[in-house]
Amino acid sequence: MGIRDEMIAMGQRAKAAAHEMAKADMETKRTFLERTAERILEQKDRIAAENAKDIQAAEAKGLPKAKVDRLRLSDKVLREMTDGLRQVAALSDPVGQITGMWTRPNGLRVGRMRIPLGVVGIIYESRPNVTVDAAGLCIKAGNAVILRGGSEAIHSNRCLAAILQESLKETGFPEAAVQVVGTTDRQAVLELLKLEEHIDVMIPRGGEELIRFVAENARMPVLKHYKGVCHIYVDEAADLDMAQQVCLNAKVQRPGVCNAMETLLVHKKIASAFLPPMAEAFRGQGVELRGCPATRDLVPECVPATEEDWSAEYLDLILAVKVVESMAEAIEHITRYGSAHTEAILTENIDRAMAFIQEVQSSLVLVNASTRFNDGYQLGLGAEIGISTSRLHAFGPMGVEELTTTKFIAFGTGQLRT
Amino acid sequence: MGIRDEMIAMGQRAKAAAHEMAKADMETKRTFLERTAERILEQKDRIAAENAKDIQAAEAKGLPKAKVDRLRLSDKVLREMTDGLRQVAALSDPVGQITGMWTRPNGLRVGRMRIPLGVVGIIYESRPNVTVDAAGLCIKAGNAVILRGGSEAIHSNRCLAAILQESLKETGFPEAAVQVVGTTDRQAVLELLKLEEHIDVMIPRGGEELIRFVAENARMPVLKHYKGVCHIYVDEAADLDMAQQVCLNAKVQRPGVCNAMETLLVHKKIASAFLPPMAEAFRGQGVELRGCPATRDLVPECVPATEEDWSAEYLDLILAVKVVESMAEAIEHITRYGSAHTEAILTENIDRAMAFIQEVQSSLVLVNASTRFNDGYQLGLGAEIGISTSRLHAFGPMGVEELTTTKFIAFGTGQLRT
Repeated sequence: MGIRDEMIAMGQRAKAAAHEMAKADMETKRTFLERTAERILEQKDRIAAENAKDIQAAEAKGLPKAKVDRLRLSDKVLREMTDGLRQVAALSDPVGQITGMWTRPNGLRVGRMRIPLGVVGIIYESRPNVTVDAAGLCIKAGNAVILRGGSEAIHSNRCLAAILQESLKETGFPEAAVQVVGTTDRQAVLELLKLEEHIDVMIPRGGEELIRFVAENARMPVLKHYKGVCHIYVDEAADLDMAQQVCLNAKVQRPGVCNAMETLLVHKKIASAFLPPMAEAFRGQGVELRGCPATRDLVPECVPATEEDWSAEYLDLILAVKVVESMAEAIEHITRYGSAHTEAILTENIDRAMAFIQEVQSSLVLVNASTRFNDGYQLGLGAEIGISTSRLHAFGPMGVEELTTTKFIAFGTGQLRT
Repeated sequence: MGIRDEMIAMGQRAKAAAHEMAKADMETKRTFLERTAERILEQKDRIAAENAKDIQAAEAKGLPKAKVDRLRLSDKVLREMTDGLRQVAALSDPVGQITGMWTRPNGLRVGRMRIPLGVVGIIYESRPNVTVDAAGLCIKAGNAVILRGGSEAIHSNRCLAAILQESLKETGFPEAAVQVVGTTDRQAVLELLKLEEHIDVMIPRGGEELIRFVAENARMPVLKHYKGVCHIYVDEAADLDMAQQVCLNAKVQRPGVCNAMETLLVHKKIASAFLPPMAEAFRGQGVELRGCPATRDLVPECVPATEEDWSAEYLDLILAVKVVESMAEAIEHITRYGSAHTEAILTENIDRAMAFIQEVQSSLVLVNASTRFNDGYQLGLGAEIGISTSRLHAFGPMGVEELTTTKFIAFGTGQLRT
């Protein structure tokens, strides 16, 4: 059987499983999620052994540290995965929820009911925890899922897939509700992207190259985000101590991810008080600064920023810094160079906080908190299946509700259209 | 200036207008909608004169009656248009609404706020009332819109566009918030479909050919429906008098539209009581029946149905009829041949009604009412901008909410990610 036929067969099995899953009752779905969390902890050693193979191979290949970091199923990542599954298990079941109901003048009662999307495709790189997060959310929302992870995580993914399949079987669900593409052949991705009859939505997760490849080749709708050029604007009315801590957290807590800060905008009135100690704190963490002339006047060791720096997603310990005349200039800068991912304002002034929240059209806009919170788990959605920076269907982290849609329902007593 | 540059310039103007419109306050938007409704009635004769040109041209070209019917801006259509505008004006403004807010264990307050989609493109055929319905909904939701109607409605569309522009100007909105492509050159459509930097979503309305053309060529997301193969299932526990009236309404009240019934499914237990008088009523309205063998046993003049009939969207006075063994068989038939548009069950049995509502995954599922209600105006959304039969972003009639999305917002007190 060629790779094309293999993918079509996989799609057909997924479609049939989706049909079953749409009818699955909430208790059984909850049991599946809780049992999977338990099983992951029970099988910790088995997972660690397989994960170690991927880590070793990555290190042997000389992958950059940030990439190796993403592969690692550390205790913390395992705990986040299982916490995520339990949190998803505990969420109210979205399927069958009536999200609204009203009566028309002719007596027709009209409402909306949540239903699953059908078959969800996920194509991802690196992080093997996506396998579990994505499967859990898709099942909770009554979908079937086809997962295609990166070749560098193949041992971890196969192991996690086996655990998921064992759990599905035990629960009495069709095993085809979660399928992992076992081959690392890139042709498999192209074939998956052609299955618009079998896959209702494709969600790519990974680098910009992968996402563009999926967006350009997929025949089904795609939920995607290209990059996170996240900004923090430190307002003239900011609490400067808090600002220093939040900026440090946003830049260095995990620099290799999409919600890390890439550009810092500082109001000119507090620049001389804020920037020198901030720069020293960044220096202590090994962060290279690239600044505008006003920044360089205050921070002599700062590298001059070029035009490219303002739209750069470094994913590394590098930060662009700009002094601005006003919040309006900060918002203009964000509109021009940003990626609509995550922006924060740090201020004690309520009017500017509310204006920033209203006017900045990014998937998450924060007041006085780190950009690193743009994450489904952190925002309380349970594990997330990705972050959308385009506005259709979902904008921002996508949790269990974003894996459903609503249909209209209507109860009549013989109403006719006149 | 070539057509490509013209469309790009139009897109840039729309993008700038969308930026303004996102900040428009609800009172001014309401004034715009109400004044536009008044202006349409004031300009009734002007509209009638321009519409007459399109009708005459269509009749001279020998277009089928159903197509000419769709062009006509009758008093009833004008009334529906202006009622729609006023209903949309009276709806609560979706922009800025907080659709939910919750607090995380670390004290971060997280919520979702509705924002406009940006620039909406509409490509449509025939019905010139779409120009007004679409513009009204787009403005209410804070978007800018680019409209491209069919060449056969060009006089009506230009006239309605002029009225809209007058109204925008009077209200103090950018005139580029509603732009109508003035040329009938088909190249303009292709150029519009390339403007993924300027148009956030494209909504085609019209025949299957147009919709496929848009779906295949658009670089931006597309909200679409291909066809309406709508079913009514008359259950064994149906009120047969009501059933006859509902079925008649669903087939003949306006046969040329997507929510008209195309296939009638009848439970075998009531087939002999129901079908002969039903067939007589259809005969009285000039409806041709194409039936399964069991139907033909009861209705001798019925034409034999072929396999193609079960998936046909006739848009005409033709109906496919099938006798089924059970509701399960009816649902199987719908799943196999339907288009996920609109299905109804007619029954007095609550258990089967609820099961049908749960199990049939169409954009509108009705109990004891005509399929003709699948329409934004009829379901209470105000005028609609289209009906989506794919599940992403919107499923079913799309009103003002479907022209928005939500962003996440978060209020903190210096929270850091650990």
